[in-house]
Amino acid sequence: MEQALYFTNSLSREKELFKPLNPPHVGMYVCGPTVYGPAHLGHGRPYITFDVLFRYLTHLGYKVRYVRNITDVGHLEDEVEGTGEDRIQKRARLEKLEPMEIAKLFTDEFHRCMRLLNVLPPSIEPRASGHIIEQIEMIKKILDNGFAYVSNGSVYFDVIKYAQSHDYGTLSGRIVEEQLAGAGSERRELEGQDEKKNPADFALWKKAQPNHIMRWPSPWSEGFPGWHIECSAMSRKYLGETFDIHGGGMDLLFPHHESEIAQSKGCCGHAPVRFWMHNNLITINGQKMGRSLNNFINLDQLFTGNHPLLKQAYTPMTIRFYILQAHYRSTLDFSNEALQAAEKAMIKLMNSVKAIDRIKPSAQSTVQIKPLRQKCYEAMNDDLNTAIVLSHLFEASRIINSTITGKEQLTAADLTEIKKLYDDFLFTILGMMQENAADDRSVDGLMNLILSIRQEAKLKKDFAVSDRIRDELLKLNFEIKDSKDGTSWSKN
Amino acid sequence: MEQALYFTNSLSREKELFKPLNPPHVGMYVCGPTVYGPAHLGHGRPYITFDVLFRYLTHLGYKVRYVRNITDVGHLEDEVEGTGEDRIQKRARLEKLEPMEIAKLFTDEFHRCMRLLNVLPPSIEPRASGHIIEQIEMIKKILDNGFAYVSNGSVYFDVIKYAQSHDYGTLSGRIVEEQLAGAGSERRELEGQDEKKNPADFALWKKAQPNHIMRWPSPWSEGFPGWHIECSAMSRKYLGETFDIHGGGMDLLFPHHESEIAQSKGCCGHAPVRFWMHNNLITINGQKMGRSLNNFINLDQLFTGNHPLLKQAYTPMTIRFYILQAHYRSTLDFSNEALQAAEKAMIKLMNSVKAIDRIKPSAQSTVQIKPLRQKCYEAMNDDLNTAIVLSHLFEASRIINSTITGKEQLTAADLTEIKKLYDDFLFTILGMMQENAADDRSVDGLMNLILSIRQEAKLKKDFAVSDRIRDELLKLNFEIKDSKDGTSWSKN
Repeated sequence: MEQALYFTNSLSREKELFKPLNPPHVGMYVCGPTVYGPAHLGHGRPYITFDVLFRYLTHLGYKVRYVRNITDVGHLEDEVEGTGEDRIQKRARLEKLEPMEIAKLFTDEFHRCMRLLNVLPPSIEPRASGHIIEQIEMIKKILDNGFAYVSNGSVYFDVIKYAQSHDYGTLSGRIVEEQLAGAGSERRELEGQDEKKNPADFALWKKAQPNHIMRWPSPWSEGFPGWHIECSAMSRKYLGETFDIHGGGMDLLFPHHESEIAQSKGCCGHAPVRFWMHNNLITINGQKMGRSLNNFINLDQLFTGNHPLLKQAYTPMTIRFYILQAHYRSTLDFSNEALQAAEKAMIKLMNSVKAIDRIKPSAQSTVQIKPLRQKCYEAMNDDLNTAIVLSHLFEASRIINSTITGKEQLTAADLTEIKKLYDDFLFTILGMMQENAADDRSVDGLMNLILSIRQEAKLKKDFAVSDRIRDELLKLNFEIKDSKDGTSWSKN
Repeated sequence: MEQALYFTNSLSREKELFKPLNPPHVGMYVCGPTVYGPAHLGHGRPYITFDVLFRYLTHLGYKVRYVRNITDVGHLEDEVEGTGEDRIQKRARLEKLEPMEIAKLFTDEFHRCMRLLNVLPPSIEPRASGHIIEQIEMIKKILDNGFAYVSNGSVYFDVIKYAQSHDYGTLSGRIVEEQLAGAGSERRELEGQDEKKNPADFALWKKAQPNHIMRWPSPWSEGFPGWHIECSAMSRKYLGETFDIHGGGMDLLFPHHESEIAQSKGCCGHAPVRFWMHNNLITINGQKMGRSLNNFINLDQLFTGNHPLLKQAYTPMTIRFYILQAHYRSTLDFSNEALQAAEKAMIKLMNSVKAIDRIKPSAQSTVQIKPLRQKCYEAMNDDLNTAIVLSHLFEASRIINSTITGKEQLTAADLTEIKKLYDDFLFTILGMMQENAADDRSVDGLMNLILSIRQEAKLKKDFAVSDRIRDELLKLNFEIKDSKDGTSWSKN
């Protein structure tokens, strides 16, 4: 915890020194998925980004309570207007299932993809539908404080009233007047709009239509909570009225996070979050990803290659590696070329990690290893710069390869040091893993046997056999390299 | 769906013909785990048993909505008396974590073990803490109907009052008078007992003590629901007031399931469940499993062998296979000897499945294959007799092995038939799977290469090499068998 951490706080748009409210505890909330469809590429980036933050803070000795919710109710089709059908209910209606069957199906699929991406589970994963009471209690307080009103069984947050005593738009930089001007009269025709005093107001509680399945009793109507209130209620329940970090994608800045701030201030009188952190968005071949643009890629499609835009399958670690090669606040474009390059780079890096054990230690080192560790810390402390961390790990990889070819030498202590560098930064903090680690043992055993047979054949000058083994192995994607220390192999 | 299914209904203690209320739909509820500790051997049996029922009904064409809950609140230490501390809260207090962190940790661990055991996820997995409103609504109705009373902010089910108009004890066969006589005056000293009119009464809602973390507002007090009411409320919400099947371990018969029946009748006036199905319990080396007996084995300890009572690790499929070798209503004893025997038998069966592809079809079959399929259906229809199904699959295995050695012959059609028999019954319905299927491809490729090198060595009469390969492979647990059709291998 002696590291000085600087993160870009979206509130100030500047890098600020991070000091938790109650060290060594850190409270962190990240908006989770709305589970009405398969996990997609857009889910990959925020959950990998904040997984790295969770891992790094834990590595530094902080006791992190990481809350990431599951939105299984209340997320309407048009999230800006707060109108349209509930996303999960719509999918349930189309597939003739109970909404909670849809939620279960896609929560499981989301978890499966996160496991494959080696994203650690959060400490608590609350469901919106499981916290209706907490949301009702919070809405009651906001009503009591005069920042909301009941209209036809629904409850709306009163943005104008709130803006008279509080800054609305601190996070997104949007100005209330502009929002009012921008919301033209034609929008008022939309469902629910005529219940609002003002188009900028947003729903805290919606009265359920007769055909609405997901409904609960409340003081105002049988209905369901608005989308924004769930995160305010659940973060307050598990992290308290003010907590350290709230993360999410930049697409959530407005209206979701702006509304969270207004709700919490409207309820409790003070700001809920000290550090707001947002990852930038991804594009696909230079275009925004969208269902209407036919470039919407699910994570499973990436892992299987089963999508017209994909030239091949990409392993979960390739996706993770690619995302970490960019700073989280930069935009990131997905293309086959970029992913293929990332895959190659990752395999090279991973192979050099495996190769450490084959290096014979020397009495003296010809290159300095220790500074790499401090450089990695510096990069992480400078707003989680995973791209720079990876460049230092590539430098370590270059040193290993040069040591294997005899150009450099390393002592046993430095070999241990370089191993620990990878263990800490590549595996523990960046969360990369060797893929197919499970079947390594059988494969290792068989490869040892094959290489010893080949070695014998070479000694007997039976080059037909030794060459055939090399060629057959290559067909199986096993590449072997002969050197003065024997034969090494790697799987491509 | 043309199969006539007979299941033992715990209500009648007899095999009854199963007909769903609204075919092709089947509603099924199974009591899930209380997530305050690692998943243990006691969880293995019910979830595998009802997984097979879920799989079989689905295979027959039924549309099953399978609800299995997560108990994350309300399960007290002494479940018969309904006293003591909440199990999750106690663990949270001991480990200084928020109760929902404990629930999340052990829910994830439970899911991991279920995945390894190839237990399919249920259609809906509701959490008790996420259905407080539904439980409060149900308690209100029971109060309105006069079958419960409020005492000092808690609500208790009035067993005497209920027994005046309903049968209490229909499921467990216990008689109210005996329970009253059995509950001596010394028990009244226990916490909460003095609030009850009668020792047989059980809590529907408990007022929270000041130090209790998990609490919600209710008409009676800030508190939390009793353990039994959650299953009544959640099954009613997702399956309706009467549904087809309710399953669980026999240890849940009383008081949990008996109370569920009383609550539902007390609320809605009719029985909640048509078929109650209970799996029998397991013993360890002939003893009941219990934390105080030092024979409590977690599933993960079985999978790793890391427990003083275990001589080795047992794979998840060995555990599943062993459980399915017994009828679900028989007791089942776990011992190293029994598990080792199950492991051997399973490997033999699995190897014969793999061997089918190596059999050359004949023009005529010397043995009848078709009847095996009908026999498997008959066994499943006779109260899910998985033990008998396995005996038929072993008969198929014997036929395959005899065909390989040339003692029997099979046509291509019969080979397809036998493959489909395994696909349907061994894999789809019993839910067994070939272990390490993921790394099969690399290993297959390397084994092919090694066996072709060995074949060449034999042709060159270089028996030193060919024998060495056989011996080295054996050390890696690969066993090879030479026959007139070439060399086959299997991994032990």
